[in-house]
Amino acid sequence: MVKAAILGFGTVGSGVYNVLNTNSELIRERTEKGIEIKYVLDLREFPGHPVDDILTHDFNDIVNDPEVKVVAEVMGGIKPAYEFTKQCLQAKKSVCTSNKELVAKHGPELLRIARENGVNYFFEASCGGGIPIIRSLNEALIADEIDEISGILNGTTNYILTRMSKEGSLFDDVLKDAQDMGYAERNPEADVEGFDAQRKIAILSSIAFGKTVDNEKIHTEGITKITPADLEFAKAFGCTIKLLAYGKKVDGRYYALVSPFMVASDNPLFSVDGVFNAIFVHGNMLGDAMFYGSGAGSLPTASAVAADMAQAVKNEGKTVYNNWQEGSIELSPSDSFECRFFVRLDKGAAGTAKSVFGEEIQFKEIPIAGDECAFITEVMSEKEFEKRAEKLSGIKSRIRCK
Amino acid sequence: MVKAAILGFGTVGSGVYNVLNTNSELIRERTEKGIEIKYVLDLREFPGHPVDDILTHDFNDIVNDPEVKVVAEVMGGIKPAYEFTKQCLQAKKSVCTSNKELVAKHGPELLRIARENGVNYFFEASCGGGIPIIRSLNEALIADEIDEISGILNGTTNYILTRMSKEGSLFDDVLKDAQDMGYAERNPEADVEGFDAQRKIAILSSIAFGKTVDNEKIHTEGITKITPADLEFAKAFGCTIKLLAYGKKVDGRYYALVSPFMVASDNPLFSVDGVFNAIFVHGNMLGDAMFYGSGAGSLPTASAVAADMAQAVKNEGKTVYNNWQEGSIELSPSDSFECRFFVRLDKGAAGTAKSVFGEEIQFKEIPIAGDECAFITEVMSEKEFEKRAEKLSGIKSRIRCK
Repeated sequence: MVKAAILGFGTVGSGVYNVLNTNSELIRERTEKGIEIKYVLDLREFPGHPVDDILTHDFNDIVNDPEVKVVAEVMGGIKPAYEFTKQCLQAKKSVCTSNKELVAKHGPELLRIARENGVNYFFEASCGGGIPIIRSLNEALIADEIDEISGILNGTTNYILTRMSKEGSLFDDVLKDAQDMGYAERNPEADVEGFDAQRKIAILSSIAFGKTVDNEKIHTEGITKITPADLEFAKAFGCTIKLLAYGKKVDGRYYALVSPFMVASDNPLFSVDGVFNAIFVHGNMLGDAMFYGSGAGSLPTASAVAADMAQAVKNEGKTVYNNWQEGSIELSPSDSFECRFFVRLDKGAAGTAKSVFGEEIQFKEIPIAGDECAFITEVMSEKEFEKRAEKLSGIKSRIRCK
Repeated sequence: MVKAAILGFGTVGSGVYNVLNTNSELIRERTEKGIEIKYVLDLREFPGHPVDDILTHDFNDIVNDPEVKVVAEVMGGIKPAYEFTKQCLQAKKSVCTSNKELVAKHGPELLRIARENGVNYFFEASCGGGIPIIRSLNEALIADEIDEISGILNGTTNYILTRMSKEGSLFDDVLKDAQDMGYAERNPEADVEGFDAQRKIAILSSIAFGKTVDNEKIHTEGITKITPADLEFAKAFGCTIKLLAYGKKVDGRYYALVSPFMVASDNPLFSVDGVFNAIFVHGNMLGDAMFYGSGAGSLPTASAVAADMAQAVKNEGKTVYNNWQEGSIELSPSDSFECRFFVRLDKGAAGTAKSVFGEEIQFKEIPIAGDECAFITEVMSEKEFEKRAEKLSGIKSRIRCK
């Protein structure tokens, strides 16, 4: 049995403990060795819980124990996870994590340290919970040039948008309800402003495109301004609104953004509802593919961490290929990213809208929107859109269309 | 550069040739070696085509060339693919294939020969075209016990059902049209009677459950009896009809079947339309996941073969783990598989239906069905269903519900 440690006994950490115990026999068969949890690191005590026997408050117990070969870092955040991860890798222990913040910020450095020490830094659980997207990008899609990776990467916002759409409710009301039900944090900013999705798409685009996409340079808009009227108009156009995280390569230029998008009903992302996540990939040979599953939750996320740990055991002594290489990708300005735009505006401005956006635009009206109407533009850059929109008063909202 | 050969220059073979050439630079970077096609085996000539320079009509050129390390077997069928594959593996060449018929029939033996010779037998492209389901099952979901794998595994039948549903057309008319457009074979039996999906679900269940599921023992029904009335009633129940291939473990008993199923609109398989494929997986820790993509077509399938070839290069000297081990799984009789049943029948039999299937069943009527109505039963085995249905005359169709 290979000895392992879990750093952090929170939602994901206790899930990893459960997965490794529940499925210990099949993991033993498939790895031909098995995994035994020797330590769990947490500042708290868990009296009466079986984990109490293997609990430590001192990270040094773990990093200094040469028997420990695999470590699950499921603490989250940068401090002290960054230092702990570095020290484990330097002590020739593979590290498997769900920590998207750390991977987005220090991924390439930690991958390099892992390589230098002949071990692995795996982070399947950092994006899309249990969905095996990272291993698919690195191994199964190895013969493809990926030119788009996009998707619904945040379950909280997808849950809120799904309920707003189904119930016609206001953002604030659904958010409050989601907080009461534990689907949203008390401080919901990271989710609803798109920062969680931003980190995840930074990681996924870095792997898909081969070099680092800096998450802080990704244009990011959240869902706080989406109204029931937007969602009703979306239905009138055969669409729904999803918070999409987007990485795209067009004519050698790279774009990344997080923003609400109108998604048409023939797009496989259209029917991804509630807390589910889905990731769409386009390869130059593969064409379209999509991966769907639970994007969060203790056990689905832990399933991915545990699978990484099993792969670390199977690949002992060998650093597995990761397509995320050293160097950075320069993103093109998001306002040159081209798409159609949905526009909601006062009916009185419809005439001007035709003169600005073209006679061929088609207006829709819906009962609940009273004096407002909406149309969808031709494909254009945001820069071009803004230039035209300046000539038009009465715009209530504009939403990109996938 | 690692030298490779392609057996068969048909739809998939020419696709593999294209993928390896188009993406040769990135494959070189990612494998750190690159792949060079040294031979293409085909009985035909291709004068003027660049493949002509490396064409051979003699398999011995390939099997006897120690430089060739990787072979793509994309001929299809059992003869001579089975013999060629065995000889290549015995000559310590990895073989990558899209040949579902051969894998379903001789998979375990060929995997064993590969292991004995320290090479790999990969068959990602045999199920779901470019969808990376097999590598996900074998590597990414290694910490999960998979208790269900089901999906839309045949693009031709999905295309036919999608068009029948959208247009209200008859099976025979859409089939003829699909044949004219090249989406269906002149002899469509393997597709429309479900045998293609049967082989694929045999392969996928064998990997998911760890031992061989014999495709010939899988209960298989095709889509030839589905009528426009069934599809219209499906809509009335908020469903659509899909040909599903099903592998499921319930209380230690294994079931596999291929059959039309009613799929409800909240199921992610509901909106998988046209020639697309999708594979749903349930893991005891992962929960629900789904993989979606092009299930056929030259380039998507070739993308999976080429990725397998790249993995064979990366894993030279090492046989990669496959969860499909020696031994067989005994399937429980399909008539003990429990589900709800959709029943279409004469309105005159509605009263008897209530006395047989329970007062609580709800009838739906639709204009195009004239004197017919439909209902959905409680969950029961097919055996139980048949027992009750015997008491009822006027049943026009019965379709399982997912």
